[in-house]
Order: sequence, then C-alpha cells, then structure tokens
Amino acid sequence: MTIDVLKANDLTETLQRQVSDLYRQLNADNKQRPLNEILAPSNNVLVIICKIENTIVATALLSTYKVISGYRGMVDDVVVDAAHRGKGIGRKLMERLLNEAKNMDLDEILLFTGHHRKPAKALYESLGFELRNSGLYNLKIH
Amino acid sequence: MTIDVLKANDLTETLQRQVSDLYRQLNADNKQRPLNEILAPSNNVLVIICKIENTIVATALLSTYKVISGYRGMVDDVVVDAAHRGKGIGRKLMERLLNEAKNMDLDEILLFTGHHRKPAKALYESLGFELRNSGLYNLKIH
Repeated sequence: MTIDVLKANDLTETLQRQVSDLYRQLNADNKQRPLNEILAPSNNVLVIICKIENTIVATALLSTYKVISGYRGMVDDVVVDAAHRGKGIGRKLMERLLNEAKNMDLDEILLFTGHHRKPAKALYESLGFELRNSGLYNLKIH
Repeated sequence: MTIDVLKANDLTETLQRQVSDLYRQLNADNKQRPLNEILAPSNNVLVIICKIENTIVATALLSTYKVISGYRGMVDDVVVDAAHRGKGIGRKLMERLLNEAKNMDLDEILLFTGHHRKPAKALYESLGFELRNSGLYNLKIH
C-alpha cells in the first residue's frame, strides 16, 4: 500500500477511470469534475491517493485558500473502496493530508460530514478535529 | 453606497486599515491575513466590499476551488459595520456574491454560520441557502 500526492504528470486514462469508479461508490448520480481540472496549477487542491497493487482504492482532497480570518484548508471527497474498509486506510490518508497541511503552514483545516456517518466522525475526532457549533448551508447553482 | 469586487490594484494602506478595523468588530483577537495575500493571483478569492462615502463598511469573501464533487465556492468573512446594520447591506453584498458565482459557473456555494446567529441565518435562508444535515469540524494548526 502506498499513499501519495497525485501530480498532473501522473494522470492517465486508467487512473482517471479508477478514480471515477471509486467516487461512484460514494455518489453514483453526481456529476464528477475530471482530475485534469482539479490538478490544474490555478486550482490550489492537493489530491491524496492510496494505491494497492497499482489500483487506486482511496482518495482525499485538500483545497487551500487565504481569507482574512486565516489560511484555510477544506477537506472533500474522502472515499475508501468498499472492499478495503476497516484497514485503517482512511486514517493513513488523513494523516498524510494533515502533514501536507502543516508543511504548507495552514492555520486551520475544515471539513463537514453527515451527522449519521459515525465511523467518519470517530476518525476525524480521533485526529483532533472538533465539532463546531455552526450549521453548514449550501445553495446549488447547477 | 457602492458594492464592488476589490482588485489588487485598488489596494491602499487606507483601504487595508479600514478593512482591518471593520474585521476587528467581528473578532478582535484573531490574527488577520493581509489583503495583498488574499488578492494574489494564485489565491482564487473574490473580495466583495461595500463603500459609503469612501469608507468600507462591509465585506464578504468567496473562495473558489474544484474538487471531484464539483466547482465550489465557500463564503467567509461576512462583516457589516455595527453602525450600518439593518440597512440591507448584508443582503446586497450576498446578492452581488451570488451573481459573481453564477458568472463563474460554480456548481454550489457553501457557508457556515453559528447556530445562534439568527439574523445571518434568516438572510441566508431568504437567499435560497439550505441547512444541511452535516456537522462542521475544524482542526487548528496554529
């Protein structure tokens, strides 16, 4: 098992297909943004992947931006292949993501997760994340 | 009253000082990131400001990034000068922000706000934002 930060140069059709198939487990209906857009230099997003025997079995993304209140990282698209859960892969991905965030000198990392997702919440809390007394609101444009 | 998107070329010491003073109303203790970092071309953040008689009385920031699940905008640092509340400035700022988001072809806008902040929640809901069944977690690095 290897955990790496995906670079634009690493991108192949096979890799894109593996990520698409994996992400479909999380949400079969949602439109996906392709990795070449995500890895464009103008988009400040780290893509962390876990590979087992040359197949991508998990992803976690960290988007970074500076606002007045700090240099923030937002975690999205944390997915572990259903066939590989319970092996600590989510924790390893998140530990790598936190190391990258520290090296980038971020002030704070944010994430949101459904109130019903107990294993995810337990993982994030064990890594030091704290539930804030805030509600998350969204507005779909498309 | 004017509502504008602040550009790096517009930045002056006076303007930075006005924004710092304004933001201190929201949070007197927090360290602030300076506007020149926020307006750097590599940082994909729109700074929307409201001016009355050449003084900045309100800000709202929109950070944009692409992840697998979509092209997202995150709203931060929405502040209206205490002396100018109740005049609909927050709504005008947010309407401008939503227009910019539509022009950029974002899929979705996110924001979070304290459960106790009733006027802010009423404003966001009236603009079409919906409370999601998710918890917001954070991890401070600094």
